[in-house]
Amino acid sequence: MKIAILTIGNELLNGRTADTNSSFIARELTALGFRIEALMSVGDEFDAIKTRLHDLLAITDAVICTGGLGPTADDITTEAVARAFERKLVMNESVLAGLKEKFARYRLAWTDNNAKQALFPDGADVIDNPVGSAAGFALPVGGKLVFVIPGVPAETRRMLPEGVIPVLRRHFGRDSEHIFKQTIKTFGLPEAAVDAKLADVNFAALGVSVGFYPVFPENHVVLTARAASADEARMKVTKATQEVASRLEDYIFSYGEKTLEETLGEILTERKITIAVAESCTGGLIASRLTDVSGSSVYFERGVVTYSNRAKIELLGVPPEIIEKHGAVSEQTAKAMAEGVRQMAKTNIGLSSTGIAGPSGGTKEKPVGTVYIALADGNQTTCRHFAFRWDRRRNKLVSSEAALMLLLNDLQGKP
Amino acid sequence: MKIAILTIGNELLNGRTADTNSSFIARELTALGFRIEALMSVGDEFDAIKTRLHDLLAITDAVICTGGLGPTADDITTEAVARAFERKLVMNESVLAGLKEKFARYRLAWTDNNAKQALFPDGADVIDNPVGSAAGFALPVGGKLVFVIPGVPAETRRMLPEGVIPVLRRHFGRDSEHIFKQTIKTFGLPEAAVDAKLADVNFAALGVSVGFYPVFPENHVVLTARAASADEARMKVTKATQEVASRLEDYIFSYGEKTLEETLGEILTERKITIAVAESCTGGLIASRLTDVSGSSVYFERGVVTYSNRAKIELLGVPPEIIEKHGAVSEQTAKAMAEGVRQMAKTNIGLSSTGIAGPSGGTKEKPVGTVYIALADGNQTTCRHFAFRWDRRRNKLVSSEAALMLLLNDLQGKP
Repeated sequence: MKIAILTIGNELLNGRTADTNSSFIARELTALGFRIEALMSVGDEFDAIKTRLHDLLAITDAVICTGGLGPTADDITTEAVARAFERKLVMNESVLAGLKEKFARYRLAWTDNNAKQALFPDGADVIDNPVGSAAGFALPVGGKLVFVIPGVPAETRRMLPEGVIPVLRRHFGRDSEHIFKQTIKTFGLPEAAVDAKLADVNFAALGVSVGFYPVFPENHVVLTARAASADEARMKVTKATQEVASRLEDYIFSYGEKTLEETLGEILTERKITIAVAESCTGGLIASRLTDVSGSSVYFERGVVTYSNRAKIELLGVPPEIIEKHGAVSEQTAKAMAEGVRQMAKTNIGLSSTGIAGPSGGTKEKPVGTVYIALADGNQTTCRHFAFRWDRRRNKLVSSEAALMLLLNDLQGKP
Repeated sequence: MKIAILTIGNELLNGRTADTNSSFIARELTALGFRIEALMSVGDEFDAIKTRLHDLLAITDAVICTGGLGPTADDITTEAVARAFERKLVMNESVLAGLKEKFARYRLAWTDNNAKQALFPDGADVIDNPVGSAAGFALPVGGKLVFVIPGVPAETRRMLPEGVIPVLRRHFGRDSEHIFKQTIKTFGLPEAAVDAKLADVNFAALGVSVGFYPVFPENHVVLTARAASADEARMKVTKATQEVASRLEDYIFSYGEKTLEETLGEILTERKITIAVAESCTGGLIASRLTDVSGSSVYFERGVVTYSNRAKIELLGVPPEIIEKHGAVSEQTAKAMAEGVRQMAKTNIGLSSTGIAGPSGGTKEKPVGTVYIALADGNQTTCRHFAFRWDRRRNKLVSSEAALMLLLNDLQGKP
């Protein structure tokens, strides 16, 4: 069951509009076990639509088209599809009556070009549009299917599940198959190393497909199984998940879609642990990520961004002689910051960052990307040293991730 | 001069990653006068890449591919392109040495699968990657061109203008045409309102094409002119820019690619003005954005994220009775926070935010999205009230933007 998606519109080809429909449709259909063979965008042109449609239908069982169903002259998708398969255009009187009724209800002046939206290729089944004026249609073409729905994202998002997917499943006898999917999120290993650590797992034998998705600075592993029953699909994925977990354990922060900060939020809330953050090189990013979580005010007491030495001394009580002796970017300063903010805020945990985000400010001993992350939890103060190699923004992001990961390890009692 | 864009990756076909490269490349090339014939995405599969590449090349003069250049087994683009045009893969010793040198510099363990990134189809010209490890290439194929660059957006955004476009222009004799492009960045008006305010400008008569690009929460206007001389192209754009400026003046923060925080950084640095930030609902995001700018330590003295009332009182000297009487989310608290942080940090300016980012925490009087932004500059303390309507993360983002815009207006002496 191969499917292609064809999005239609000049605004896609000149880059004025980013195509968000394709990835939405692809995601929904993949989750249902359909295989997406290709995504394509073409402009509002008869020849282009016709040729691409035939090309795509040659390699798939169904093509889902979006866009070009409006009432204006440059909306030609319906006519282009009719021409492509040598069908006449037929006026659907019930759709026409519905359109006229809608215009009357909203007191819009009826103009005849609107009748265009009631024309469909001969043999097509109309797909209702519950949120707009342009109906879509499904056209059977020699055992295959061509769908056409509007390109307005809000309309696509309704008409795909309500109008397209039921027809697809029925037509291709897929009502019975079950899918289970598991995302495993990791940080701390490059993509190649994640791959290498899982190289000995025979996912095919487990009946599971595996995908690797780098989402800087994280690497996500996605396991998917299809089976005749929901239980069987879940069981296959559970087994594969155990294999992945035993090999990547120290780097995993989430089984599922939760972000690192959401994972932390749950633990901190449940265990009633409070935290304060003292940031230098991350410049507020750690605090901003922690507070991206709704309800974070329960555990996040305060953050300070101490860019100047004076702020480090005044707000965190970092002894000036430590900065003088070891420098603001040092293990000693990082530890004093974490301990200082913990003490000032009276929280369970203090977390700190100091480093050189770049592109300027590096020295031979402490090049750009040198970062110290420290955590004080009352029992001990730990510090980790990193040598990152990205641009300023990515150095900040990966530093904040390292800090949050250090926090997670501390909460989980890992060294 | 027709061009197709082929983005490659299973993550695109299963909808896990939305393809942002296609619209970026399409926009850049359209602005330069190239015609985009089709956009396509395929998975990491030899046959699919080969067939689609031939299909696209049959209807265009050049195909630009992104993605699938990583070191892991599922990254097969280079080999697929080589097979498609029956070229051998040749090791580029200089690229290999560069890779090894990079690994050594960052103390990463070299594994042999990384050498893959130094293999290129015979006859290809290497395209340098200034921000990542995977180099790209341009392969001449019978008078036409196939480009391959990485799919990591930050890398695509550098390598397209620096590595692909110069080759395209040279190869197709477009060096003689001169292009001038001007981005005008605005904040504070919805896209439809920007459009409406510019409706009476006859851009065609000025010889300029105009594009609108929403980049949440900003709206960017891009003016492009082509002419036989650089001066003529620039002159056309300058005239059109004046028309736009006179209509959108209060909302413009940048003529060019500079971000809002970069614009502020230049002014603060030049005028030796220092700033401190006190954040509640933005949770560190204002500080993080200000410190995204290299050299920001010159003007950014400190930031505090005072989520708790105690932190507001201790760190900012906000009188407890103000919080009691008016609430933590109020004009009075916002002003006291801005004045407090300015005084504590001894900076020229204090900037503050307090509000309800949501999704919980709203009341009938102060619904989710209620935000107060205040600025104290020693002469006066101003406060603005907003009612935003987004999700938590976007409420934080638009609040930080409003705060930075208030700062810009203050620096420019606007009310």
